[in-house]
Amino acid sequence: MRLDDRENREELRETVIETDYLKHPEGSVFIRVGDTKVICTASIEKRVPPFLRGQGKGWITAEYAMLPRATGERNIRESSKGKVSGRTMEIQRLIGRALRSVIDLEAFGERTVWVDCDVIQADGGTRTASITGAFVATVMAFSRLAQDVALKSFPIVDYLAAVSVGIDDKGEALLDLCYEEDSAAAVDFNVVMTGSGQFVEVQGTGEEATFSRDQLDEMLGLAEEGIQNLIGIQKQVLDDAGTTLPVTREGKT
Amino acid sequence: MRLDDRENREELRETVIETDYLKHPEGSVFIRVGDTKVICTASIEKRVPPFLRGQGKGWITAEYAMLPRATGERNIRESSKGKVSGRTMEIQRLIGRALRSVIDLEAFGERTVWVDCDVIQADGGTRTASITGAFVATVMAFSRLAQDVALKSFPIVDYLAAVSVGIDDKGEALLDLCYEEDSAAAVDFNVVMTGSGQFVEVQGTGEEATFSRDQLDEMLGLAEEGIQNLIGIQKQVLDDAGTTLPVTREGKT
Amino acid sequence: MRLDDRENREELRETVIETDYLKHPEGSVFIRVGDTKVICTASIEKRVPPFLRGQGKGWITAEYAMLPRATGERNIRESSKGKVSGRTMEIQRLIGRALRSVIDLEAFGERTVWVDCDVIQADGGTRTASITGAFVATVMAFSRLAQDVALKSFPIVDYLAAVSVGIDDKGEALLDLCYEEDSAAAVDFNVVMTGSGQFVEVQGTGEEATFSRDQLDEMLGLAEEGIQNLIGIQKQVLDDAGTTLPVTREGKT
Amino acid sequence: MRLDDRENREELRETVIETDYLKHPEGSVFIRVGDTKVICTASIEKRVPPFLRGQGKGWITAEYAMLPRATGERNIRESSKGKVSGRTMEIQRLIGRALRSVIDLEAFGERTVWVDCDVIQADGGTRTASITGAFVATVMAFSRLAQDVALKSFPIVDYLAAVSVGIDDKGEALLDLCYEEDSAAAVDFNVVMTGSGQFVEVQGTGEEATFSRDQLDEMLGLAEEGIQNLIGIQKQVLDDAGTTLPVTREGKT
Amino acid sequence: MRLDDRENREELRETVIETDYLKHPEGSVFIRVGDTKVICTASIEKRVPPFLRGQGKGWITAEYAMLPRATGERNIRESSKGKVSGRTMEIQRLIGRALRSVIDLEAFGERTVWVDCDVIQADGGTRTASITGAFVATVMAFSRLAQDVALKSFPIVDYLAAVSVGIDDKGEALLDLCYEEDSAAAVDFNVVMTGSGQFVEVQGTGEEATFSRDQLDEMLGLAEEGIQNLIGIQKQVLDDAGTTLPVTREGKT
Amino acid sequence: MRLDDRENREELRETVIETDYLKHPEGSVFIRVGDTKVICTASIEKRVPPFLRGQGKGWITAEYAMLPRATGERNIRESSKGKVSGRTMEIQRLIGRALRSVIDLEAFGERTVWVDCDVIQADGGTRTASITGAFVATVMAFSRLAQDVALKSFPIVDYLAAVSVGIDDKGEALLDLCYEEDSAAAVDFNVVMTGSGQFVEVQGTGEEATFSRDQLDEMLGLAEEGIQNLIGIQKQVLDDAGTTLPVTREGKT
Repeated sequence: MRLDDRENREELRETVIETDYLKHPEGSVFIRVGDTKVICTASIEKRVPPFLRGQGKGWITAEYAMLPRATGERNIRESSKGKVSGRTMEIQRLIGRALRSVIDLEAFGERTVWVDCDVIQADGGTRTASITGAFVATVMAFSRLAQDVALKSFPIVDYLAAVSVGIDDKGEALLDLCYEEDSAAAVDFNVVMTGSGQFVEVQGTGEEATFSRDQLDEMLGLAEEGIQNLIGIQKQVLDDAGTTLPVTREGKT
Repeated sequence: MRLDDRENREELRETVIETDYLKHPEGSVFIRVGDTKVICTASIEKRVPPFLRGQGKGWITAEYAMLPRATGERNIRESSKGKVSGRTMEIQRLIGRALRSVIDLEAFGERTVWVDCDVIQADGGTRTASITGAFVATVMAFSRLAQDVALKSFPIVDYLAAVSVGIDDKGEALLDLCYEEDSAAAVDFNVVMTGSGQFVEVQGTGEEATFSRDQLDEMLGLAEEGIQNLIGIQKQVLDDAGTTLPVTREGKT
Repeated sequence: MRLDDRENREELRETVIETDYLKHPEGSVFIRVGDTKVICTASIEKRVPPFLRGQGKGWITAEYAMLPRATGERNIRESSKGKVSGRTMEIQRLIGRALRSVIDLEAFGERTVWVDCDVIQADGGTRTASITGAFVATVMAFSRLAQDVALKSFPIVDYLAAVSVGIDDKGEALLDLCYEEDSAAAVDFNVVMTGSGQFVEVQGTGEEATFSRDQLDEMLGLAEEGIQNLIGIQKQVLDDAGTTLPVTREGKT
Repeated sequence: MRLDDRENREELRETVIETDYLKHPEGSVFIRVGDTKVICTASIEKRVPPFLRGQGKGWITAEYAMLPRATGERNIRESSKGKVSGRTMEIQRLIGRALRSVIDLEAFGERTVWVDCDVIQADGGTRTASITGAFVATVMAFSRLAQDVALKSFPIVDYLAAVSVGIDDKGEALLDLCYEEDSAAAVDFNVVMTGSGQFVEVQGTGEEATFSRDQLDEMLGLAEEGIQNLIGIQKQVLDDAGTTLPVTREGKT
Repeated sequence: MRLDDRENREELRETVIETDYLKHPEGSVFIRVGDTKVICTASIEKRVPPFLRGQGKGWITAEYAMLPRATGERNIRESSKGKVSGRTMEIQRLIGRALRSVIDLEAFGERTVWVDCDVIQADGGTRTASITGAFVATVMAFSRLAQDVALKSFPIVDYLAAVSVGIDDKGEALLDLCYEEDSAAAVDFNVVMTGSGQFVEVQGTGEEATFSRDQLDEMLGLAEEGIQNLIGIQKQVLDDAGTTLPVTREGKT
Repeated sequence: MRLDDRENREELRETVIETDYLKHPEGSVFIRVGDTKVICTASIEKRVPPFLRGQGKGWITAEYAMLPRATGERNIRESSKGKVSGRTMEIQRLIGRALRSVIDLEAFGERTVWVDCDVIQADGGTRTASITGAFVATVMAFSRLAQDVALKSFPIVDYLAAVSVGIDDKGEALLDLCYEEDSAAAVDFNVVMTGSGQFVEVQGTGEEATFSRDQLDEMLGLAEEGIQNLIGIQKQVLDDAGTTLPVTREGKT
């Protein structure tokens, strides 16, 4: 039995994705994974950063933040501190890299997609929920763009989702840790994969601990299964929103 | 006829306040005023800033922010810019002052109440919606505190709400402007009042314009009526949440 | 009797404006209101901010600061702190908005007017003295400009001055509060008006207090009278400096 | 054949560690891995950060930087930019976590170990060379400390080293990539392991690419072998310096 | 003939020092050297920086700034830029060191003297005018302190003044350069000396130029004479203000 | 006898300059002066700062930093503090000015030379060692440039080196102070001179002390002799590296 009453170590938390959550952004979703709640938006701007100008290709970048009271203790706003923390930077770089792995930057002209993931309530797994939700918001923004302008091809070439896995204090692997499990875990992994079963990111760390190759293999197995389930949910949500994603890639490297 | 289809210039937009919106904060509401949506939380911390230590009294302070895509165009995050804008500072100082006018800082010991107003979607009047919502979140946080510890008295001595008023391009006064009306208005006022009909803040400005004493009087009249209606909604919401606010003041100066 | 020995609550402090105080700026004044002393300069630069380029119109912006020892206790310099305080931002936004309300930005081509108000000594009312002085410095800078280049029309369309009003601890309204009165006052208003009797800004706040509609009306009455007296002084000073201001507006909205 | 003339894809670059490189720090090494050169120092300070005071345990933290011209193009100093980049933050957090996984913070009292890794010349793998070098500098600092004061036990419980692995454009795994290989690689992994063969960190990313489970397994195999070779070099260097590391752990989790 | 109509190369500009210029600071002067005008204040605070606490001695530190329009072109405020320039830092470090050379830090207990030099109008030699004026402001602040509390001894042990010297484009030495001379000069020296004829600071630089030993000797000779004249003015001013400086030192090293 | 066992007060410490120390920069040296060790690099970039564009001339600028543990106590990195200290700014401005005095900016087109001086180990005289080393690195960078492109003339017109001098506690002058001597000295001078015996910078300060004209003359004499010896070493090193510096100037002013 899990700390939040799930029955199995390979069970995902209830995951719900609500599309068109806000009226202004080109794409927006509200994703809930257990008690973790994130607003993900995708904004399309008709220009690229200076280093890309004149090359005819686009850019996608991500930002991540938490409301001060998304957590049990209030956090000082990063705007008040005047700088972004190392943790925030790591997460927004991760989200951006992950999305770029399934997006064809040549397909949508000199445009920038700004992805914003704002955590309203945190209960573990905020960065993986952000990736899973941001993917859907980005698909919706590109769908809207594709209705307005002619694109070379649909810019998204595969599905993408993410999940956390870990090792609990008995040495057993767990899928999709809630905050209480995460705090007790010795090892913490975040895995990002595509719909075609390829890995995009594997980030595992044993703060003040270590893990064996067998434990690593077990965690990766759980993550693969969990991510395919999350992609099933994404497909359903996009279907319901009338947005079909034409997957054009079997897996690239 | 108003730009957002309201029938009269003295009509408020539909205003809904949802309590206990988040699980972590001591008090939290989601307030919707037309298409303006704000999450307001009140967090109670068991200490005060250095300048107040040892005096046996508390403090209340407010912060305000917008999600980058709360608006039609994406705004750069203030955490990325490394500083808080003048507009944000003005607004958070306003919210803090307004709340302090109805709170007895001597009543709740050496505690700080952090009020956070995060605008999810903006359609005009975000600062006044923040005050109206923050008041309810603060009442709920103090109610919870009053259940846990013995307070000298309930710290909130009167109701408090805020609304915007303005002058349109025909020179007529309007209550509770939506974004489109606000953009077209020559004069923009924000008014904060208490349940006992006293003024707390009157901030009016005619950016590149001016206004007469008659117009000022007309706007104040609209504001007084609008605010009493908003306070009616607050009373109902607190009632539904089982929180009775014992108003102990008839109006102080 | 007032705390600084004035006889009536509607009496202004002695106000003196010295023109051409510095040799470098296009316009400069030293304004003294009681013991409050401010150097106001207006500098004209032959370019506009990026958002205005190519539109053929100008811009005016204001900055405000205090010498560290303008006050009873030394303040840390904002340059040393590395950021401008919320109070400073509020004041410089106020000064800029106020000046823009009587200036025709179309009249002086693609130029920026930088208004700098530096408080040498503070004794209450520094922001209103800054506006009253900055207006004169700006008139003088435009007069000099009008001698050098052909302008469509003289850019200043009306007089402009500002004053503070408040409510003392007996509930009575006072005009032009000195620091000691301001500290004791429950309510603090700043009012900006034009020569034609129109309001430009009304900013009133009852920090930890409130005020009635009657008190508000009484304060506005005092402010109207005080500002017309200040405008009389401005007219005399400009006259003595050989600068006639051709008022071209009866009051716009 | 490799781009830098190594013969096999499982071959490490020449790795040399020079101890006692500087006269002031408690521990210091100069590590060279191919053309990558890093100065690693360990400084022991007799106090801990506020959050640890009074608990009788120590802390270890790491900082990382590059000389402006460590690379082919000059980089602007982070001190001139006024902020540390996301990349730098990621790396110094990684180094700190890695070291903490083999250090018993209870063993050396209320002291902070500051580890500084300054890259003098970069040719790929600067973060992994930093970890491998920093480990030796830290051992030497603790050896010196152990001579001066009585410690509960020697604080370092296992060896620690790190290496990069990647997938080249033919889809083959490579060990210890030089800069030219790294630039051409589709996938980039950094692996940190202990002397007892446990994993500490696995960070792999396919910027604009993905990788299969088989490729992941192959990379991990190369990394395991490479790291054990690096640990052999560390043992020899410490032996030559007369510092024996009493490994007290078989592998914890 | 000099560029500003002085007759000789060894002639100082007219120098006037007005004492008690502001009402709040413990000591304040307005110093005018030709068209250079500086407000110098000395503020005494009853505490010292952390590194001096508990040692029974005091501290003196200086800050320097220019109004944005003290110069021909408007300068951006350092508070707006969010950082203090290298030039400003150099000057305030110079002023502080110079003052400390004639002040006995043991004589006035655990107090900090904050010296603020704010340039109202600049015409060359602002840093030397600041030192000459700051000395008088500091004497006056200590005189006031000596009236209020018992000091071990009067903290100022000698007079102190500063002047600039330079080499013009004909290779000749000039005393006390105005801005126009300074711009044309190849070499620029600032010299600080005491009443007893000792040197405190000699800072000479030939930006894009060099100078011979003979030229250096000639400049130092001019500076020595000029500074003794400035000290004569300081003595007169302090005498007029009823403040006698008991010089207790013949020259220390 | 000196504190570091030198026999005479006019004796330089052992000074060694190693050229081509790093592989990436256009010019790089490792300079050791006693136990002071500095890496100096010169990087040539094919553009100039905005204020020089289109004038056909180049620019040279310098930056200076210390590794955190170059000194006996660890210093916090300036990148972590988010700002560069006043001391660092002073030093890098000094290095830049000194180099510009012997460089013909018209000779190498619109290029910027970035000089970086990074102190690896500090034992007094880091700024003067930086200048002496930076000169050699800059010569080598220009030699390489002269091989690649046609220059109007070789940009360096004279040799340049720097040394410190001081007054010890017995009032005697000393050349080239080590850290221990510097800490004990009452007066501290840095002198920069050219190969033709002209002065470039003379910066002397008696922090909490003063010095006589005789002492000043004695220090300058020591510095002149020491600098000519350092220039002898530079000539030998450049000769060994096959780089002949065509001195084209006899001394300008």
